[in-house]
Amino acid sequence: MFTVDVNRRTALRAAAAAGIGAGLTATGVAAPAAADLRTGTDGPATGLRIAILLFDGVTPIDAIGPYEVLCRVPGASVLTVGKRTGPVRSDTGVLALGVDHTLREVRRADVLLVPGGNVRGVQADPATIRWIQQIHRGTTWTVSVCTGALVLGAAGLLRGLPATTYWGLHAQLAQFGAAYVPDRFVEAGRIITAAGMSAGIDMALHLAAKLADDRIAQALQLTVEYDPRPPFDTGSPDKAGPELQRLALELLNPGGR
Amino acid sequence: MFTVDVNRRTALRAAAAAGIGAGLTATGVAAPAAADLRTGTDGPATGLRIAILLFDGVTPIDAIGPYEVLCRVPGASVLTVGKRTGPVRSDTGVLALGVDHTLREVRRADVLLVPGGNVRGVQADPATIRWIQQIHRGTTWTVSVCTGALVLGAAGLLRGLPATTYWGLHAQLAQFGAAYVPDRFVEAGRIITAAGMSAGIDMALHLAAKLADDRIAQALQLTVEYDPRPPFDTGSPDKAGPELQRLALELLNPGGR
Repeated sequence: MFTVDVNRRTALRAAAAAGIGAGLTATGVAAPAAADLRTGTDGPATGLRIAILLFDGVTPIDAIGPYEVLCRVPGASVLTVGKRTGPVRSDTGVLALGVDHTLREVRRADVLLVPGGNVRGVQADPATIRWIQQIHRGTTWTVSVCTGALVLGAAGLLRGLPATTYWGLHAQLAQFGAAYVPDRFVEAGRIITAAGMSAGIDMALHLAAKLADDRIAQALQLTVEYDPRPPFDTGSPDKAGPELQRLALELLNPGGR
Repeated sequence: MFTVDVNRRTALRAAAAAGIGAGLTATGVAAPAAADLRTGTDGPATGLRIAILLFDGVTPIDAIGPYEVLCRVPGASVLTVGKRTGPVRSDTGVLALGVDHTLREVRRADVLLVPGGNVRGVQADPATIRWIQQIHRGTTWTVSVCTGALVLGAAGLLRGLPATTYWGLHAQLAQFGAAYVPDRFVEAGRIITAAGMSAGIDMALHLAAKLADDRIAQALQLTVEYDPRPPFDTGSPDKAGPELQRLALELLNPGGR
């Protein structure tokens, strides 16, 4: 038992969410940015609701990277949401992720996370697009990873905004009226778009600092032991150069299917 | 269509796995380390078989981080393996991942990946431990992420070896006769153990270079856009200091359950 500088409500929410007595001792410093939480009738009445949209074709790390950080923000509960409950298949077909809640069941969220992948089906699905638009009206933050930005774009949320997406598909942002910025993540009002795949982890730490505070976010970085030491330095198109860019896209999408 | 310096067998395997005509042009440079591939009767006869063990209590990013890199190594096919097919629940209970193959169905793999999480159930399950021991006898590489090392330890695979695991639980390695090394990942013979959660991405890029070559691994780093820019620098216990260490463990395991 030790002292944590989150406010009492957050601490109690965390304890309540965990179904235990208060595990954190509140000291009553400044309330986190997301302290003004709306309540709903379709789930836990208190706490920070984080909805992650899942769909067939999703790139798992786009969802899982941020999930590992955000699910541990004090008071947060993460919901997986999709057209149907049950498994969806990843972009490679190899991996299945489970959807626990239908679009219809989830009518509000404080944070909406839209991962990327093969997003054409989602972009073309009116029910999902309407759901994103509706949920976005009530969010504190609406965020995307990778080509999830192209879904936010299809929902009309990026018009006139700076944004980022997967390096190899950034030209597609223009059709949605967004201006591509080649950053790791881009915050524009209450929308944050992250670059490809692993960039969701960086974005989620930034978001965790907004939802709680810097100290919690710093601790969460250690919780997920995010002290990156890649054996190469080719993780951005500029660093990799044109030949590795072509190879990277071929490995992503063998045969250019 | 462009030239890739992998050998012809790898290129053809990749094309065959994708069910398409050869999308890569072979140039016949040195064969990748894993070119001497065994065949089996329980799956595709050719190619690099990568088995990922999943179980109730798994930390999703431990599996998903390496998966995103390794599934795109030319010629590789990734199998999810568990006690039963169907969903397993994550350590937080929030997320479900799908298991496609039972232990009994998978009798060999070139790479075995054991992720971490709440691993006590796995450590105590004789069938899973025997399966790990059996698969390990035929692997080119046996790798773990996070507390997955404590599962390899329980299987007796780390005796006398240097290894790493989750920073907060490294003392447990000693009971399995392993010597903790506080590195991002540790290679000892054909076993590679990675540190906590996100460290699996770094390890997987290192492994991809072994399975194919540096150029493929460098391209894969760009494929997953792994150009880390965390907003803080607190991802290792040394950098974070004792107070953030305590907070990080509390956020991992609220109330010390």
